[in-house]
Amino acid sequence: MRLPRQLEGAVEMFRRLPGVGEKTALRYALEMTTWSVDQTLFFTKELGNLIDLKRCDECGYFCDTALCSVCSQETRLESGIVCVVENVANCLAVEKSGVYKGVYHVLGGVINPFLGIGPEELTIEKLLERIEKHSLKEVILALNPSIEGDVTSAYLRDKLDKLPHSLIVRRIGLGVPMGGSLEHLDSLTILKALENRRSF
Amino acid sequence: MRLPRQLEGAVEMFRRLPGVGEKTALRYALEMTTWSVDQTLFFTKELGNLIDLKRCDECGYFCDTALCSVCSQETRLESGIVCVVENVANCLAVEKSGVYKGVYHVLGGVINPFLGIGPEELTIEKLLERIEKHSLKEVILALNPSIEGDVTSAYLRDKLDKLPHSLIVRRIGLGVPMGGSLEHLDSLTILKALENRRSF
Repeated sequence: MRLPRQLEGAVEMFRRLPGVGEKTALRYALEMTTWSVDQTLFFTKELGNLIDLKRCDECGYFCDTALCSVCSQETRLESGIVCVVENVANCLAVEKSGVYKGVYHVLGGVINPFLGIGPEELTIEKLLERIEKHSLKEVILALNPSIEGDVTSAYLRDKLDKLPHSLIVRRIGLGVPMGGSLEHLDSLTILKALENRRSF
Repeated sequence: MRLPRQLEGAVEMFRRLPGVGEKTALRYALEMTTWSVDQTLFFTKELGNLIDLKRCDECGYFCDTALCSVCSQETRLESGIVCVVENVANCLAVEKSGVYKGVYHVLGGVINPFLGIGPEELTIEKLLERIEKHSLKEVILALNPSIEGDVTSAYLRDKLDKLPHSLIVRRIGLGVPMGGSLEHLDSLTILKALENRRSF
């Protein structure tokens, strides 16, 4: 049964969202067909507003004004700690833990030669500038543990070591996640968890 | 960490889609923020086109012209069979099986007093008209097996029995789905499967 043009268009669009296959996209599109014209137009208008989203001049996080809600709090910059994350989603994840009181730096990705992403595509220069400008004391590398995350962390470590003032560089702890069970974790995670054992 | 207004708006919109929670909605919204302005505008334009979607004058299925792709095939009406489904998604599911060569009739729901849906909210009158007008010979009730589906099927059965000309009324087979395993199915399905046993 051929789908009408409009429905096919909508399915194609929804498939662009992460993790959405043909079936889910059709489900979303069919749901939308049960909406009133006003509801549909409101939906598309709100999504279209995303093009007005601004990035914080300092850290790269989203914001309504020039500085984001984190960078505009003086106490957070005064902590002297910057947490380097790959993207905004990771920034949100760290912030949600509620324990981190420093500022963030969104790299905008990780080094990945296969996707043609080199260090110059990331906001590394900006990070070094910020560290110098605000005389930050500690850098927490909170990149996801993966080959690309490891390579990018090592690259950053090198760059940070070359800065004139001494700096504490740390990587976020690797190990068994809370609620995780050892028998279901991969050996690399177990290896990291053993390496990162702590006095107790 | 407070989300910017635009992002919050997008998350709220995505949550209106079936099965989409806070986390998935945020994932979709964040994905959209990585798109170019053109990509975002194309996305919202295509989804907005859904308001132009027309319904087939005959069966209620979507269509580009007055008649849908099924109703416009004369051989399908000539088969004399009409398959009654709850909604368009179910219509697509039956059509995908590739074996059904009759026409469809989209009821637009099932009788559900809790949601205030009575028989008059459904396209039952239109169904009776079509059966009379085209002298259809067989009605296949393909409503989902549920209390509401059962009630609606029984109601239709009554209405169809009162039509002047004799009509074969059948309900779609209930039983064990292909690939299903008996130990994981509920007792009601097993009961229906036993009732519907066939010579083999």
